[in-house]
Amino acid sequence: MSQSEAEVSRLFDRTLAGLKEAVRGLIGGDGFDPHPDLAKGDAERIREHLWACLESRGGEVSARSRAAALGRAYLHLSETGRRRYLTILATEFDRNPVAVARAVRALESAPAEGRAAAEDALRDALDAPRERLLRQFNALSDGVKFLVDLRYDLMRFAREDTALSGLEKDLKRLLASWFDIGFLELRRIDWNAPASLLEKLIDYEAVHAIRSWQDLKNRLDSDRRCYAFFHPSMPDEPLIFVEVALETGLADNVHALLDEESPVGDPSRADTAVFYSISNAQRGLAGIAFGDFLIKRVVDDLRAELPNLKTFATLSPIPGFSRWLEKNPDEAVGAALAKPGWWDDPDAAEAAKGPVLRAVARYLVQARRKGRAADPVAHFHLANGARMERLNWLANTSESGRAQSAGVMINYLYRRDMIEANHEAYKGEGRIAMSSAVRALAGKQEKKRR
Amino acid sequence: MSQSEAEVSRLFDRTLAGLKEAVRGLIGGDGFDPHPDLAKGDAERIREHLWACLESRGGEVSARSRAAALGRAYLHLSETGRRRYLTILATEFDRNPVAVARAVRALESAPAEGRAAAEDALRDALDAPRERLLRQFNALSDGVKFLVDLRYDLMRFAREDTALSGLEKDLKRLLASWFDIGFLELRRIDWNAPASLLEKLIDYEAVHAIRSWQDLKNRLDSDRRCYAFFHPSMPDEPLIFVEVALETGLADNVHALLDEESPVGDPSRADTAVFYSISNAQRGLAGIAFGDFLIKRVVDDLRAELPNLKTFATLSPIPGFSRWLEKNPDEAVGAALAKPGWWDDPDAAEAAKGPVLRAVARYLVQARRKGRAADPVAHFHLANGARMERLNWLANTSESGRAQSAGVMINYLYRRDMIEANHEAYKGEGRIAMSSAVRALAGKQEKKRR
Amino acid sequence: MSQSEAEVSRLFDRTLAGLKEAVRGLIGGDGFDPHPDLAKGDAERIREHLWACLESRGGEVSARSRAAALGRAYLHLSETGRRRYLTILATEFDRNPVAVARAVRALESAPAEGRAAAEDALRDALDAPRERLLRQFNALSDGVKFLVDLRYDLMRFAREDTALSGLEKDLKRLLASWFDIGFLELRRIDWNAPASLLEKLIDYEAVHAIRSWQDLKNRLDSDRRCYAFFHPSMPDEPLIFVEVALETGLADNVHALLDEESPVGDPSRADTAVFYSISNAQRGLAGIAFGDFLIKRVVDDLRAELPNLKTFATLSPIPGFSRWLEKNPDEAVGAALAKPGWWDDPDAAEAAKGPVLRAVARYLVQARRKGRAADPVAHFHLANGARMERLNWLANTSESGRAQSAGVMINYLYRRDMIEANHEAYKGEGRIAMSSAVRALAGKQEKKRR
Amino acid sequence: MSQSEAEVSRLFDRTLAGLKEAVRGLIGGDGFDPHPDLAKGDAERIREHLWACLESRGGEVSARSRAAALGRAYLHLSETGRRRYLTILATEFDRNPVAVARAVRALESAPAEGRAAAEDALRDALDAPRERLLRQFNALSDGVKFLVDLRYDLMRFAREDTALSGLEKDLKRLLASWFDIGFLELRRIDWNAPASLLEKLIDYEAVHAIRSWQDLKNRLDSDRRCYAFFHPSMPDEPLIFVEVALETGLADNVHALLDEESPVGDPSRADTAVFYSISNAQRGLAGIAFGDFLIKRVVDDLRAELPNLKTFATLSPIPGFSRWLEKNPDEAVGAALAKPGWWDDPDAAEAAKGPVLRAVARYLVQARRKGRAADPVAHFHLANGARMERLNWLANTSESGRAQSAGVMINYLYRRDMIEANHEAYKGEGRIAMSSAVRALAGKQEKKRR
Repeated sequence: MSQSEAEVSRLFDRTLAGLKEAVRGLIGGDGFDPHPDLAKGDAERIREHLWACLESRGGEVSARSRAAALGRAYLHLSETGRRRYLTILATEFDRNPVAVARAVRALESAPAEGRAAAEDALRDALDAPRERLLRQFNALSDGVKFLVDLRYDLMRFAREDTALSGLEKDLKRLLASWFDIGFLELRRIDWNAPASLLEKLIDYEAVHAIRSWQDLKNRLDSDRRCYAFFHPSMPDEPLIFVEVALETGLADNVHALLDEESPVGDPSRADTAVFYSISNAQRGLAGIAFGDFLIKRVVDDLRAELPNLKTFATLSPIPGFSRWLEKNPDEAVGAALAKPGWWDDPDAAEAAKGPVLRAVARYLVQARRKGRAADPVAHFHLANGARMERLNWLANTSESGRAQSAGVMINYLYRRDMIEANHEAYKGEGRIAMSSAVRALAGKQEKKRR
Repeated sequence: MSQSEAEVSRLFDRTLAGLKEAVRGLIGGDGFDPHPDLAKGDAERIREHLWACLESRGGEVSARSRAAALGRAYLHLSETGRRRYLTILATEFDRNPVAVARAVRALESAPAEGRAAAEDALRDALDAPRERLLRQFNALSDGVKFLVDLRYDLMRFAREDTALSGLEKDLKRLLASWFDIGFLELRRIDWNAPASLLEKLIDYEAVHAIRSWQDLKNRLDSDRRCYAFFHPSMPDEPLIFVEVALETGLADNVHALLDEESPVGDPSRADTAVFYSISNAQRGLAGIAFGDFLIKRVVDDLRAELPNLKTFATLSPIPGFSRWLEKNPDEAVGAALAKPGWWDDPDAAEAAKGPVLRAVARYLVQARRKGRAADPVAHFHLANGARMERLNWLANTSESGRAQSAGVMINYLYRRDMIEANHEAYKGEGRIAMSSAVRALAGKQEKKRR
Repeated sequence: MSQSEAEVSRLFDRTLAGLKEAVRGLIGGDGFDPHPDLAKGDAERIREHLWACLESRGGEVSARSRAAALGRAYLHLSETGRRRYLTILATEFDRNPVAVARAVRALESAPAEGRAAAEDALRDALDAPRERLLRQFNALSDGVKFLVDLRYDLMRFAREDTALSGLEKDLKRLLASWFDIGFLELRRIDWNAPASLLEKLIDYEAVHAIRSWQDLKNRLDSDRRCYAFFHPSMPDEPLIFVEVALETGLADNVHALLDEESPVGDPSRADTAVFYSISNAQRGLAGIAFGDFLIKRVVDDLRAELPNLKTFATLSPIPGFSRWLEKNPDEAVGAALAKPGWWDDPDAAEAAKGPVLRAVARYLVQARRKGRAADPVAHFHLANGARMERLNWLANTSESGRAQSAGVMINYLYRRDMIEANHEAYKGEGRIAMSSAVRALAGKQEKKRR
Repeated sequence: MSQSEAEVSRLFDRTLAGLKEAVRGLIGGDGFDPHPDLAKGDAERIREHLWACLESRGGEVSARSRAAALGRAYLHLSETGRRRYLTILATEFDRNPVAVARAVRALESAPAEGRAAAEDALRDALDAPRERLLRQFNALSDGVKFLVDLRYDLMRFAREDTALSGLEKDLKRLLASWFDIGFLELRRIDWNAPASLLEKLIDYEAVHAIRSWQDLKNRLDSDRRCYAFFHPSMPDEPLIFVEVALETGLADNVHALLDEESPVGDPSRADTAVFYSISNAQRGLAGIAFGDFLIKRVVDDLRAELPNLKTFATLSPIPGFSRWLEKNPDEAVGAALAKPGWWDDPDAAEAAKGPVLRAVARYLVQARRKGRAADPVAHFHLANGARMERLNWLANTSESGRAQSAGVMINYLYRRDMIEANHEAYKGEGRIAMSSAVRALAGKQEKKRR
């Protein structure tokens, strides 16, 4: 170890020791009631308790009780208090740079037979102490939910304060491990589900807002299905959910789907399952993907329950079209949509149809970001192995539907025998699977296959 | 990158590419039926499927299906086949040494603001690809149990084949994360539990063998309690369980505790809970500790249910005494125990009592291994914050009881107000908490407290 | 048997035989699809199937399948069809008068030692065959609910058609036996209950209409309780439910109770449980009483959960006051209530208070029907052993509250140590238990106790 | 009313009044602790409490509490005490003969329009007060089980004491109503069932004793099925259960079926379900039949689960053969079975086979009691619509198997398309359905069908 390193290390250790010493007197009972903004003294008590947790002072059981108390304290803090709390966690329990450097050196000088051990030691040095603390919060009775919500806080704060982004990444890695798909439970949700759960669907629905309990009941009727993934430690919190309509033929209009007055169909006669809404319910799990598993599992479930179903497809929004159109203006489209009330006027609508559909098709097929489809919904389904099947005119003429994509919606088709090939082609070469109708609209030539 | 490094890296990459190329033709359906000993062709197919999993070929959903098939294939292999399978996983999906070296260099030359990212990258390089594969086995319907049992295989194999120990460590780290105490569920087990579960208690009981269903029923009677920890993904498999007798006064004899003929006591009048057996049920979770949490949680549970309980203690074996005595012979003890049938002969037993108890006390208090109590049961309870309360003469005169510790057993006492201090004293200075009676037997002076 | 009796009997038997013969050809499969109005041919098929059920033709298992099909057929009938169906059941499967007469004679001439058997035989003759048929409908998957609803049909029809009242009584007796209180399960209902169940509360609430899901959620908040009785064969159908507010002090105003904006109280600090709504949910169980058991069980439950509760009382409507007042006009009251908006005008309200409260008290205490309190809610609580505790002015100034009882409500008090005595006094001598305040308002002298 | 009747009535009423008066002072709290043999004072207290229950003194809720206390008191009585207790219930709460006579007279003089009411009144008079008391015992927490066991007591006592048989009949009628088949739940029982439940199977198995938990586990293996009926108020108590083996071909030997060493078959390949044991589990439900429903429901369940199953049959004992043979001796049979160890000696067994099988067939087909098959097991299956399919030689050579029927067993065949016809033919004309092989053995001519 060079002299300067030794100094840094000593300094680091002394700081820790000093920290510990300074607050040793502050350790109180397990419960504490800090000021919402985490005033200075409170911050020191928090810090000291975090140290006690990290060192499992009093034994592992005590450390966990303490972690639970620390978690409860967090919940009572203001935004300011939470930022301060998380900053302590992020910066004072970060990796020890000296230990890392030492481990790097040890690896570099390790003989062949000691290499694996040295790599392990380096890996351990790269695990920040705060990771261990994050795990300990699982001692809270709703510990997993606590951590999911904590990540949402961190994501928000880290946007403005990069000092928190390391902690945010650590937490994301931890949650990705704990929310491994193998632990998730697929549950069908119907009108017999707890009201407290259904209320969450109303809150979390992100695609077509649920207007009332009656609207919700209609979406859970016998010709509808709703499925969600759950984690065993958050049994009352859906992670992601999908709404499905059982229809005859491919749905081309979301108003018809959501019409509370339309008669209830006979699910055993339906030939098509239309996935018309997929919503993530936990903002703190952003970036941890379950959507493709959800679709796949629901398809399997429906296939087993209703052997008559032959077609599995979505009726999806095209959220990025209008923004793209602004940057890539099209005269004909602009003119057609400029006419007030064009969607309610048959002639105006008919006139707009051709130009708009062609523009949407071009957007979907050609607009790219880093080799991926620029439209996020398109990217999601293409990456899952679906293909673009059909564009639907006047499919969603609500204000938001018009604002997003001039009322156009698209069906993505999931065909079991094509999913893997579509996925590979898209992932590898960025090739988008599409029907000949979509291809024609987008003005593309059919690719010849070897 | 130096020339030689570049060469190694190229070689490594080419090997991988070659491997992949060589077996590309072998990819079959998801199901395959390898030879039990994993003959050459099968090994190549396994290898190729592992690659496909690692690369999420065909999408993440397909990768998981493939992992499940790989897992099922493993289950049908012989010991030889399993070793070969795990050797592929351990060696061919190990860390890429060149990537590690490259990441180390990048870290060393990183500017201050890029340091965290470089550390992250190095950490990722230190995560062996096999870790990701281990996680994917969670796609099996009993994936967690599969991994727990896989670890037991690895532990056995790694004893003879150090090439497997890295994989074993990776799996241990994964399981330690997934079996975080916060995920475990404490369940009371009684005679209304499923027979299939109770049968496992019979199989797993490690301290006092359960002789029959009648013996088991007696241990689950109204003046007894049995608790176990369960993981939500293994709901039918106890992880660790404890058997408790509700008594008046501290039990001093295990035969009386287990006597099927003894009358059933009234639990609401009991003042003492005696933990007389703690057994780990999953060999694949060795080294991942739940025992202290189990005792703590059971104490809380019993306290809430039966407010009359005042004393919580064990009646524990002393498994290491006889081996210690061999190495530290004691003439008086040797003579006393040499007498045939000494335990059934009141005079001989009385004569042996003093010397034996003193020797046992010395063993418990003085015999150390790496600063810890040498006796493993003693170490477990001391580390949990218990104290040595009382030695019991003729407490287990069965053949195994005599063989282990001349029939002596010990009560460890759990007192809520002393647990943290005992734990810290033991963990820090190795100081053992004990009653004055034990201290006197061990011939130690009472330590003066400041 | 006299000649004429023999003739009647022969005639009766021949009619049956003829009936059976006439329709033997009509027996089809178990399923049949009658005309909604039960045209003639259908009626004959129903009749024949009923006979087949009664005789357990093809075995008891077949008879039950047939009964299930008969039940399903009933559900598809129009009102006209149902009347015809029930008339067949009521009249053609009534007691056989000749068999009754014969059994009476046998009893009269029975020797002492044969008397019990002769009584048994007579009792059997008095059990109409239709009773057995009613039981067989229990073969339907929702058989019990079917019978409950059938009784509601019968009650409605029997009001106009006395030929059905015997069948209605038979069914009531059967349901009273099957809904024995010992079979009922008390369940607490909260916001975690299935939406499909909560929707029924909204439908069935009979005292203070639930205006919205938000109103319902407010009634299920942590300072509220809702309990219902359920039958194991109708697990999704509440039989009767009660809504309780946990308060400090006796509630005197229902608007305050139901105010969605009022802050949520801490139930552990409440000293009073106010039963503010009890609703029967199954019209087909009219006359089969569970209400007193419900109150008693809920009191027990609350007492166990919240030891701080000292007072258990209702806040009840006085539904019969206004009708009584019409027949027993009171000048002062009439004048006070004639003033438009009296309830919103403090002076007018104050002026009305005295006369109205006194009139209400007289009504409650003095108005009798067959020796019972004339007010049905009063009768219910008095018979259960409650006492009239306090009249509340401006307690329910909604339109219906004013229409029923000039906005006055009453608290009935349940005191464990007085329930039996109150009940006996009321049941025996019609004596009404009341507080001295109520007594004073009613202008009664305190009764001297021996 | 004639003078003497009036006197009897007065006497009856006075006795009651006297009774009540005499013991009014004795009424204590709800709990009481009578002498096990129910000494005189205790009997009076019991009597008084029964009266209080009957009159719902203090309200229906109080009456039920009292009934529960009365029930608990019963459970602590000796056989002598129970007899006394039940004698009070049976004789002092019997029908009032004067009231019956009065109601008979009222009926005889009733005008046409009052006839139904008079019949109702008579029916009420014929309901003994003790019936109402029996219902009130349902207030016990295990009230239904209490009544079932009470009936078993009554059945035993009534054999020697006819004064109790009326009460026994009342209770049977009540239980038959409450155990209506529509209330029963069919549950499959496997090795995951609670040990406490499985223990009951061991206790209750009446056909082929379960020798050990290992034997039981073998009977619950994947190629076996066990089903039982349960009542919702006795969820832990099977009412009747059946054990089924899934086989290829019709089983002809019970030892093979119960062999713990035989390999486990693949249920999805089985073509035959063999019902090899049906046991009633509640002696107090004797005479209340569920067996035919159980078989029917299990057949339906198995058919749905395992579509490969084509044949549903029993392997049944012939419990009455040996007793019949004693009364109808057969020289050849006698000689064959006199040879010691005939069943283990191939030659002797072969020699015995013909004579014995013919004798058994004659017994089964010809021996009648009141027009029914004399063999009780034969009667049960024939009444359910099964036919005699095959006699099996050396099918049960255990001591009890030889003692009952010289080791012969029989298969009864359940064919869905013949069940109703078989049932009707047997019930009507006593005609027994049988295969031509059984017919040939019994020496009967094939009946010509029209």
